[in-house]
Amino acid sequence: MTLSETLKHINPLDRSSESAAQERLDSLTKPHGSLGKLEDLARRIAVIQGEVPPRLGRKLLFVFAADHGITQEGVSAYPKEVTAQMTHNFLNGGAAVNVMARHHGVDTDIVDVGVDYEFGEPRGLRNYKVRRGTANFARGPAMTHAEAKRSVELGIQLAREAAPGNIFLLGAGDMGIGNTSSAAAILCALTGAAPAAAVGRGTGIDDATLDRKIAAIEKGLDLNRPDANDPLDVLAKVGGLEIGAMTGVILAAAAFRMPMVLDGFISGAAALLAQRFCPYVRDVLFASHLSAERGHGLMLEELKLAPLLDLAMRLGEGTGACLLMGLIETAVKIMGEMATFESAGVREKLT
Amino acid sequence: MTLSETLKHINPLDRSSESAAQERLDSLTKPHGSLGKLEDLARRIAVIQGEVPPRLGRKLLFVFAADHGITQEGVSAYPKEVTAQMTHNFLNGGAAVNVMARHHGVDTDIVDVGVDYEFGEPRGLRNYKVRRGTANFARGPAMTHAEAKRSVELGIQLAREAAPGNIFLLGAGDMGIGNTSSAAAILCALTGAAPAAAVGRGTGIDDATLDRKIAAIEKGLDLNRPDANDPLDVLAKVGGLEIGAMTGVILAAAAFRMPMVLDGFISGAAALLAQRFCPYVRDVLFASHLSAERGHGLMLEELKLAPLLDLAMRLGEGTGACLLMGLIETAVKIMGEMATFESAGVREKLT
Repeated sequence: MTLSETLKHINPLDRSSESAAQERLDSLTKPHGSLGKLEDLARRIAVIQGEVPPRLGRKLLFVFAADHGITQEGVSAYPKEVTAQMTHNFLNGGAAVNVMARHHGVDTDIVDVGVDYEFGEPRGLRNYKVRRGTANFARGPAMTHAEAKRSVELGIQLAREAAPGNIFLLGAGDMGIGNTSSAAAILCALTGAAPAAAVGRGTGIDDATLDRKIAAIEKGLDLNRPDANDPLDVLAKVGGLEIGAMTGVILAAAAFRMPMVLDGFISGAAALLAQRFCPYVRDVLFASHLSAERGHGLMLEELKLAPLLDLAMRLGEGTGACLLMGLIETAVKIMGEMATFESAGVREKLT
Repeated sequence: MTLSETLKHINPLDRSSESAAQERLDSLTKPHGSLGKLEDLARRIAVIQGEVPPRLGRKLLFVFAADHGITQEGVSAYPKEVTAQMTHNFLNGGAAVNVMARHHGVDTDIVDVGVDYEFGEPRGLRNYKVRRGTANFARGPAMTHAEAKRSVELGIQLAREAAPGNIFLLGAGDMGIGNTSSAAAILCALTGAAPAAAVGRGTGIDDATLDRKIAAIEKGLDLNRPDANDPLDVLAKVGGLEIGAMTGVILAAAAFRMPMVLDGFISGAAALLAQRFCPYVRDVLFASHLSAERGHGLMLEELKLAPLLDLAMRLGEGTGACLLMGLIETAVKIMGEMATFESAGVREKLT
């Protein structure tokens, strides 16, 4: 399914289940609204699925790995080889996202969309390399329009293939040394934010590196002049291959009405791109947490999404998404498993 | 074990495991500190247990039910019979706390410490009724000092009995129509806060009922003059039987070094009392969430505890505690299951 075909499939959300979902919540043995944001989560899932109570099912997290040419500017605390090394770590189950995914019963799908390393064919890695890392966007475009489109359509393809498999929640995480530079550049390009306000410390850079990072992004934006009205142009000029793939997953989630759980700063950049492709995608998006990465708050404001968690996390990989998937599952079970005032013989509120 | 014996067993926390816990966290394949508050949770558990990584084990939530004479003042949105009806609902697995406990693998122990109803002997209910509800504290003391002490020692007994059973996390939830009045009165009595600042809408009362509730609490404080320096006196004069039992669980958790997860406004009042009995209890306490109940923020400030979650919940029962137990378990698994930089062959941060 091409990008343009997918966009044609994204419609405003049918909200016809909303009142039934609210009635159901209000029939349960608890004061109305007393589970706060958990009730909002359950109601949103019911509306997206069109079912009350919503059905549970598979929780699937794509973890996209790719490299970034911008690392040549010395903007990262870790060497670029760590992208491939951490991808191996994902495959061996030793990374934070693996631990969290196991704890919350989330299936992970590890996808190489552009790591600058030849993995051979290790078990469990899905090889969809578009190219071996992006070019350095401080010196030219990160990739061609065709490559950017391929990365988006790869995400669309993967999410579409998963769709018939009783998907309850989709998520997307990332691994890519240098990708907070790319995500910050996308944020600036799409919103006009100043790099100094949008750029953070990523994996933990010092002041001198932060200055270099801001300068590199300013240079990249000046040189490439990404068109704020053309998300594909922004992705190609200053984006990343994993960000493109995440954008595609988000678009397919909207097209096929699958609730889509964002992670942190990187998936937020993908969500911004997806929203510029089609504003209706917002209806299926769930912001998991407010990252400690500077610029993420700005990004969520722009997306008009309120994060559920604020745990000072800044790891990526899909760790925040896993936490929210657990919370959403709890919320949906509340709607499905609690007794009603009537069934439990509990007296309702005095009027 | 009596209250005074328990207090003698509470010592300042031995922090000798703290540096080993931090070293372990920093050896794992993630940027230092990038899991934010999850790392703090794991480190605190390691310190309390004195083990790195901490061991997992049983998660046990006591749910204490009791009635409150203050309901005679018309301070609640629900009739008093709901305390007994909801207790049946807990036993039948239909309440919110049951759903959350099942989801997070938390064992629940439902305890009647003072419901104004004769249950007979329903399966699963532990009968430790001290009396059939408190007296109306707007017209006299809620209970005698002896009854207050019995409720605290009941909590101590239950937690102490559980202690040898590989307890990983303890929690305490509540059911008691009228108990936000009692918790607010305790907050005012211990801190000098004005009722208008400490009293909230509980299960959802209207403005007129809120005014009545504030007036009833003012009256109760004026009439009973609880001694701010004597937590047992405060508990007896304006407290509740479930709040006393929760206070006992917290004291025993501190005495036997078991991590203790608070719930919302009611368990917060118990924690304030416990902290006045002995300030060292704070070391084993975890604040789960910021309740939507007015006064809870003030209470947590007084406890010097930062809540991990802010989901606009205001239900009680132990629902917030269950959510945090899940989060702490995730955090501890992170410390125990993640690969290290060395074991995974991942390069560390450039210096």
